[in-house]
Amino acid sequence: MMRFYDDLRVGDRVELGSHLFTADDIKAFARQFDPQAFHVDEEQGARSHFGALVASGWHTASIWMRKLVDHRKREAEAMQARGERIPQVGPSPGFRDLRWYRPVFVGDTVSYSVEVIEMRVSQSRPDRGIVNMLGIGENQNGVRVISFESATFVERRDSTTP
Amino acid sequence: MMRFYDDLRVGDRVELGSHLFTADDIKAFARQFDPQAFHVDEEQGARSHFGALVASGWHTASIWMRKLVDHRKREAEAMQARGERIPQVGPSPGFRDLRWYRPVFVGDTVSYSVEVIEMRVSQSRPDRGIVNMLGIGENQNGVRVISFESATFVERRDSTTP
Repeated sequence: MMRFYDDLRVGDRVELGSHLFTADDIKAFARQFDPQAFHVDEEQGARSHFGALVASGWHTASIWMRKLVDHRKREAEAMQARGERIPQVGPSPGFRDLRWYRPVFVGDTVSYSVEVIEMRVSQSRPDRGIVNMLGIGENQNGVRVISFESATFVERRDSTTP
Repeated sequence: MMRFYDDLRVGDRVELGSHLFTADDIKAFARQFDPQAFHVDEEQGARSHFGALVASGWHTASIWMRKLVDHRKREAEAMQARGERIPQVGPSPGFRDLRWYRPVFVGDTVSYSVEVIEMRVSQSRPDRGIVNMLGIGENQNGVRVISFESATFVERRDSTTP
Protein backbone atom coordinates (compact mmCIF):
# COMPACT_ATOMS: atom_id res chain seq x y z
CA MET A 1 0.00 0.00 0.00
CA MET A 2 2.78 2.40 -0.91
CA ARG A 3 0.34 4.79 -2.54
CA PHE A 4 -0.73 8.37 -2.12
CA TYR A 5 -4.01 8.91 -0.29
CA ASP A 6 -5.64 10.02 -3.56
CA ASP A 7 -4.76 6.72 -5.25
CA LEU A 8 -6.35 4.53 -2.57
CA ARG A 9 -9.96 3.34 -2.53
CA VAL A 10 -12.04 1.55 0.10
CA GLY A 11 -11.89 -2.14 -0.74
CA ASP A 12 -8.32 -2.06 -2.09
CA ARG A 13 -6.49 -5.13 -0.82
CA VAL A 14 -2.84 -6.05 -1.06
CA GLU A 15 -1.27 -9.45 -0.40
CA LEU A 16 1.81 -9.00 1.78
CA GLY A 17 3.25 -12.51 1.56
CA SER A 18 3.14 -15.60 3.74
CA HIS A 19 5.08 -17.13 6.64
CA LEU A 20 5.59 -20.76 7.66
CA PHE A 21 5.46 -21.15 11.44
CA THR A 22 7.98 -23.80 12.48
CA ALA A 23 8.37 -25.21 16.00
CA ASP A 24 11.77 -23.49 16.38
CA ASP A 25 10.33 -20.19 15.23
CA ILE A 26 7.33 -20.42 17.58
CA LYS A 27 9.49 -21.36 20.57
CA ALA A 28 12.16 -18.72 19.89
CA PHE A 29 9.59 -15.91 19.92
CA ALA A 30 7.78 -17.32 22.93
CA ARG A 31 10.91 -17.79 25.02
CA GLN A 32 11.60 -14.08 24.63
CA PHE A 33 8.14 -12.56 24.82
CA ASP A 34 5.41 -15.02 25.79
CA PRO A 35 6.86 -18.06 27.62
CA GLN A 36 3.55 -19.77 28.38
CA ALA A 37 3.83 -23.56 28.45
CA PHE A 38 1.81 -24.15 25.24
CA HIS A 39 4.06 -21.73 23.31
CA VAL A 40 7.43 -23.22 24.33
CA ASP A 41 6.97 -26.98 24.69
CA GLU A 42 5.28 -29.57 22.45
CA GLU A 43 4.28 -31.90 25.29
CA GLN A 44 2.78 -29.15 27.38
CA GLY A 45 1.04 -27.86 24.24
CA ALA A 46 -0.47 -31.32 23.69
CA ARG A 47 -1.85 -31.30 27.25
CA SER A 48 -3.25 -27.75 26.94
CA HIS A 49 -6.68 -26.74 25.66
CA PHE A 50 -5.01 -26.08 22.29
CA GLY A 51 -3.95 -29.73 21.99
CA ALA A 52 -0.57 -28.85 20.48
CA LEU A 53 2.23 -26.29 20.43
CA VAL A 54 0.78 -22.99 19.17
CA ALA A 55 2.28 -19.63 18.23
CA SER A 56 1.95 -16.66 20.56
CA GLY A 57 -0.68 -14.25 19.27
CA TRP A 58 1.93 -11.50 19.52
CA HIS A 59 4.14 -13.53 17.22
CA THR A 60 1.37 -13.84 14.62
CA ALA A 61 0.87 -10.07 14.86
CA SER A 62 4.58 -9.20 14.73
CA ILE A 63 5.05 -11.19 11.53
CA TRP A 64 2.23 -9.17 9.94
CA MET A 65 4.26 -6.03 10.69
CA ARG A 66 7.38 -7.57 9.19
CA LYS A 67 5.48 -8.49 6.03
CA LEU A 68 4.07 -4.96 5.74
CA VAL A 69 7.50 -3.36 6.12
CA ASP A 70 9.03 -5.73 3.53
CA HIS A 71 6.16 -4.99 1.14
CA ARG A 72 6.58 -1.24 1.53
CA LYS A 73 10.33 -1.50 0.92
CA ARG A 74 9.79 -3.50 -2.27
CA GLU A 75 7.21 -1.00 -3.51
CA ALA A 76 9.39 2.00 -2.62
CA GLU A 77 12.34 0.49 -4.49
CA ALA A 78 10.18 -0.19 -7.54
CA MET A 79 8.84 3.38 -7.50
CA GLN A 80 12.35 4.77 -7.10
CA ALA A 81 13.50 2.66 -10.07
CA ARG A 82 10.66 4.16 -12.12
CA GLY A 83 11.64 7.65 -10.98
CA GLU A 84 8.35 8.17 -9.14
CA ARG A 85 7.87 10.19 -5.98
CA ILE A 86 7.43 7.98 -2.90
CA PRO A 87 4.54 8.87 -0.57
CA GLN A 88 5.10 9.50 3.14
CA VAL A 89 3.25 6.80 5.06
CA GLY A 90 2.87 6.61 8.83
CA PRO A 91 3.15 6.81 11.72
CA SER A 92 0.33 4.73 13.17
CA PRO A 93 -1.09 5.90 16.50
CA GLY A 94 -2.34 2.40 17.37
CA PHE A 95 -5.03 -0.03 16.37
CA ARG A 96 -8.44 -1.37 17.30
CA ASP A 97 -10.10 -4.71 17.77
CA LEU A 98 -7.26 -7.15 17.37
CA ARG A 99 -8.76 -10.63 17.26
CA TRP A 100 -7.12 -14.02 17.36
CA TYR A 101 -9.74 -16.28 15.77
CA ARG A 102 -7.90 -19.60 15.61
CA PRO A 103 -4.61 -20.94 16.96
CA VAL A 104 -1.57 -21.04 14.67
CA PHE A 105 -0.01 -24.51 14.85
CA VAL A 106 3.42 -25.83 13.86
CA GLY A 107 3.50 -26.19 10.07
CA ASP A 108 0.78 -23.60 9.43
CA THR A 109 1.50 -21.11 6.68
CA VAL A 110 -0.18 -17.77 7.32
CA SER A 111 -0.84 -15.46 4.37
CA TYR A 112 -0.97 -11.81 5.35
CA SER A 113 -2.84 -9.00 3.66
CA VAL A 114 -4.11 -5.50 4.25
CA GLU A 115 -7.40 -3.98 3.09
CA VAL A 116 -8.57 -0.36 3.03
CA ILE A 117 -11.82 -0.11 5.02
CA GLU A 118 -12.24 3.66 5.64
CA MET A 119 -10.63 6.90 4.48
CA ARG A 120 -10.85 10.54 5.52
CA VAL A 121 -8.80 13.72 5.16
CA SER A 122 -6.98 14.71 8.35
CA GLN A 123 -8.40 17.81 10.09
CA SER A 124 -5.11 18.63 11.79
CA ARG A 125 -2.87 17.92 8.78
CA PRO A 126 -4.58 18.70 5.48
CA ASP A 127 -1.56 17.32 3.58
CA ARG A 128 -2.39 13.91 5.01
CA GLY A 129 -5.28 11.49 4.85
CA ILE A 130 -6.17 8.99 7.54
CA VAL A 131 -6.58 5.50 6.14
CA ASN A 132 -8.18 2.78 8.26
CA MET A 133 -6.92 -0.58 7.17
CA LEU A 134 -7.76 -4.11 8.17
CA GLY A 135 -4.67 -6.26 8.75
CA ILE A 136 -5.49 -9.90 8.05
CA GLY A 137 -3.80 -13.28 8.46
CA GLU A 138 -5.27 -16.49 7.04
CA ASN A 139 -3.91 -20.01 7.32
CA GLN A 140 -3.33 -22.49 4.45
CA ASN A 141 -7.00 -23.53 4.65
CA GLY A 142 -8.18 -19.97 4.07
CA VAL A 143 -9.29 -19.68 7.70
CA ARG A 144 -8.73 -16.28 9.29
CA VAL A 145 -6.41 -16.50 12.31
CA ILE A 146 -5.90 -12.79 13.07
CA SER A 147 -7.27 -9.40 12.12
CA PHE A 148 -7.08 -5.87 13.45
CA GLU A 149 -7.93 -2.33 12.37
CA SER A 150 -5.10 0.10 12.03
CA ALA A 151 -5.18 3.83 11.28
CA THR A 152 -2.29 5.33 9.33
CA PHE A 153 -1.48 8.83 8.11
CA VAL A 154 -0.89 8.77 4.34
CA GLU A 155 0.44 11.68 2.25
CA ARG A 156 -1.90 13.31 -0.28
CA ARG A 157 -0.62 13.61 -3.82
CA ASP A 158 -1.01 17.39 -3.96
CA SER A 159 0.62 18.00 -0.57
CA THR A 160 3.73 19.56 -2.11
CA THR A 161 1.83 21.76 -4.56
CA PRO A 162 -0.36 23.98 -2.36
CA MET B 1 -3.64 -10.92 38.61
CA MET B 2 -3.51 -14.61 39.42
CA ARG B 3 -6.82 -14.47 41.25
CA PHE B 4 -10.22 -16.07 40.97
CA TYR B 5 -12.92 -13.96 39.34
CA ASP B 6 -14.64 -13.54 42.71
CA ASP B 7 -11.52 -12.04 44.27
CA LEU B 8 -11.11 -9.33 41.62
CA ARG B 9 -12.65 -5.85 41.75
CA VAL B 10 -12.87 -3.06 39.19
CA GLY B 11 -9.97 -0.71 39.92
CA ASP B 12 -7.58 -3.45 41.08
CA ARG B 13 -4.15 -2.71 39.64
CA VAL B 14 -1.00 -4.80 39.67
CA GLU B 15 2.54 -3.67 38.85
CA LEU B 16 4.15 -6.19 36.51
CA GLY B 17 7.73 -4.91 36.56
CA SER B 18 9.82 -2.70 34.33
CA HIS B 19 12.09 -3.04 31.30
CA LEU B 20 15.07 -0.94 30.18
CA PHE B 21 15.06 -0.50 26.40
CA THR B 22 18.66 -0.55 25.17
CA ALA B 23 19.77 0.19 21.61
CA ASP B 24 20.77 -3.46 21.07
CA ASP B 25 17.43 -4.65 22.38
CA ILE B 26 15.45 -2.23 20.18
CA LYS B 27 17.44 -3.11 17.06
CA ALA B 28 17.32 -6.89 17.66
CA PHE B 29 13.52 -6.88 17.83
CA ALA B 30 13.17 -4.51 14.88
CA ARG B 31 15.52 -6.46 12.62
CA GLN B 32 13.25 -9.47 13.07
CA PHE B 33 9.80 -7.94 13.10
CA ASP B 34 9.74 -4.24 12.21
CA PRO B 35 12.86 -3.22 10.24
CA GLN B 36 11.86 0.39 9.61
CA ALA B 37 14.85 2.74 9.44
CA PHE B 38 14.10 4.57 12.73
CA HIS B 39 13.94 1.22 14.61
CA VAL B 40 17.25 -0.25 13.39
CA ASP B 41 19.70 2.63 12.95
CA GLU B 42 20.59 5.57 15.22
CA GLU B 43 21.49 7.94 12.38
CA GLN B 44 18.34 7.26 10.44
CA GLY B 45 16.38 7.60 13.68
CA ALA B 46 17.95 11.02 14.23
CA ARG B 47 16.83 12.13 10.75
CA SER B 48 13.27 10.77 11.22
CA HIS B 49 10.28 12.59 12.72
CA PHE B 50 11.10 10.82 16.01
CA GLY B 51 14.53 12.50 16.17
CA ALA B 52 16.23 9.36 17.50
CA LEU B 53 16.22 5.57 17.47
CA VAL B 54 12.87 4.38 18.88
CA ALA B 55 11.45 0.99 19.81
CA SER B 56 8.89 -0.70 17.58
CA GLY B 57 5.42 -0.41 19.07
CA TRP B 58 5.12 -4.19 18.74
CA HIS B 59 8.25 -4.50 20.87
CA THR B 60 6.75 -2.31 23.61
CA ALA B 61 3.62 -4.47 23.49
CA SER B 62 5.46 -7.81 23.44
CA ILE B 63 7.42 -6.88 26.56
CA TRP B 64 4.13 -6.21 28.34
CA MET B 65 3.12 -9.80 27.56
CA ARG B 66 6.43 -11.10 28.86
CA LYS B 67 6.01 -9.16 32.09
CA LEU B 68 2.47 -10.49 32.52
CA VAL B 69 3.57 -14.11 32.01
CA ASP B 70 6.49 -13.69 34.45
CA HIS B 71 4.15 -12.12 37.00
CA ARG B 72 1.63 -14.95 36.69
CA LYS B 73 4.35 -17.57 37.10
CA ARG B 74 5.65 -15.89 40.27
CA GLU B 75 2.13 -15.69 41.70
CA ALA B 76 1.33 -19.31 40.77
CA GLU B 77 4.54 -20.50 42.45
CA ALA B 78 3.75 -18.53 45.59
CA MET B 79 0.19 -19.93 45.70
CA GLN B 80 1.49 -23.45 45.17
CA ALA B 81 3.99 -22.96 48.00
CA ARG B 82 1.10 -21.90 50.25
CA GLY B 83 -0.91 -24.95 49.16
CA GLU B 84 -3.59 -22.81 47.49
CA ARG B 85 -5.59 -23.75 44.42
CA ILE B 86 -4.42 -21.87 41.31
CA PRO B 87 -7.14 -20.26 39.16
CA GLN B 88 -7.42 -21.01 35.45
CA VAL B 89 -6.76 -17.78 33.57
CA GLY B 90 -7.08 -17.31 29.83
CA PRO B 91 -7.17 -17.57 26.94
CA SER B 92 -7.60 -14.07 25.58
CA PRO B 93 -9.58 -13.73 22.35
CA GLY B 94 -7.87 -10.44 21.47
CA PHE B 95 -7.89 -6.83 22.53
CA ARG B 96 -9.20 -3.39 21.75
CA ASP B 97 -7.87 0.08 21.28
CA LEU B 98 -4.14 -0.36 21.48
CA ARG B 99 -2.56 3.09 21.60
CA TRP B 100 1.03 4.15 21.33
CA TYR B 101 1.04 7.58 23.00
CA ARG B 102 4.73 8.43 22.98
CA PRO B 103 7.87 6.93 21.43
CA VAL B 104 10.10 4.71 23.56
CA PHE B 105 13.69 5.89 23.21
CA VAL B 106 17.03 4.22 23.98
CA GLY B 107 17.55 4.31 27.75
CA ASP B 108 13.86 4.56 28.59
CA THR B 109 12.63 2.28 31.36
CA VAL B 110 9.00 1.30 30.90
CA SER B 111 7.01 0.16 33.92
CA TYR B 112 4.17 -2.18 33.03
CA SER B 113 0.92 -2.73 34.89
CA VAL B 114 -2.56 -4.12 34.45
CA GLU B 115 -5.80 -2.74 35.82
CA VAL B 116 -9.28 -4.28 36.02
CA ILE B 117 -11.74 -2.00 34.22
CA GLU B 118 -14.83 -4.19 33.71
CA MET B 119 -16.13 -7.59 34.87
CA ARG B 120 -19.01 -9.84 33.93
CA VAL B 121 -19.98 -13.49 34.27
CA SER B 122 -19.67 -15.44 31.02
CA GLN B 123 -23.00 -16.42 29.42
CA SER B 124 -21.50 -19.39 27.57
CA ARG B 125 -19.34 -20.63 30.45
CA PRO B 126 -20.88 -19.94 33.87
CA ASP B 127 -17.73 -21.31 35.56
CA ARG B 128 -15.80 -18.38 34.10
CA GLY B 129 -15.93 -14.62 34.34
CA ILE B 130 -14.83 -12.23 31.64
CA VAL B 131 -12.47 -9.61 32.97
CA ASN B 132 -11.62 -6.56 30.87
CA MET B 133 -8.22 -5.28 31.80
CA LEU B 134 -6.22 -2.26 30.76
CA GLY B 135 -2.61 -3.09 29.97
CA ILE B 136 -0.42 -0.05 30.64
CA GLY B 137 3.20 0.97 30.04
CA GLU B 138 4.67 4.19 31.47
CA ASN B 139 8.17 5.56 31.04
CA GLN B 140 10.53 6.72 33.80
CA ASN B 141 8.84 10.14 33.79
CA GLY B 142 5.45 8.61 34.52
CA VAL B 143 4.28 9.32 30.95
CA ARG B 144 2.05 6.66 29.41
CA VAL B 145 3.61 5.17 26.28
CA ILE B 146 1.17 2.32 25.58
CA SER B 147 -2.21 1.03 26.69
CA PHE B 148 -4.76 -1.47 25.44
CA GLU B 149 -7.89 -3.23 26.62
CA SER B 150 -7.77 -6.97 26.88
CA ALA B 151 -10.55 -9.43 27.71
CA THR B 152 -9.62 -12.62 29.55
CA PHE B 153 -11.61 -15.59 30.82
CA VAL B 154 -10.97 -16.07 34.55
CA GLU B 155 -12.12 -19.04 36.64
CA ARG B 156 -14.77 -18.45 39.33
CA ARG B 157 -13.94 -19.69 42.80
CA ASP B 158 -17.02 -21.90 43.09
CA SER B 159 -16.59 -23.44 39.63
CA THR B 160 -15.59 -26.84 41.02
CA THR B 161 -18.33 -26.94 43.65
CA PRO B 162 -21.55 -26.75 41.65
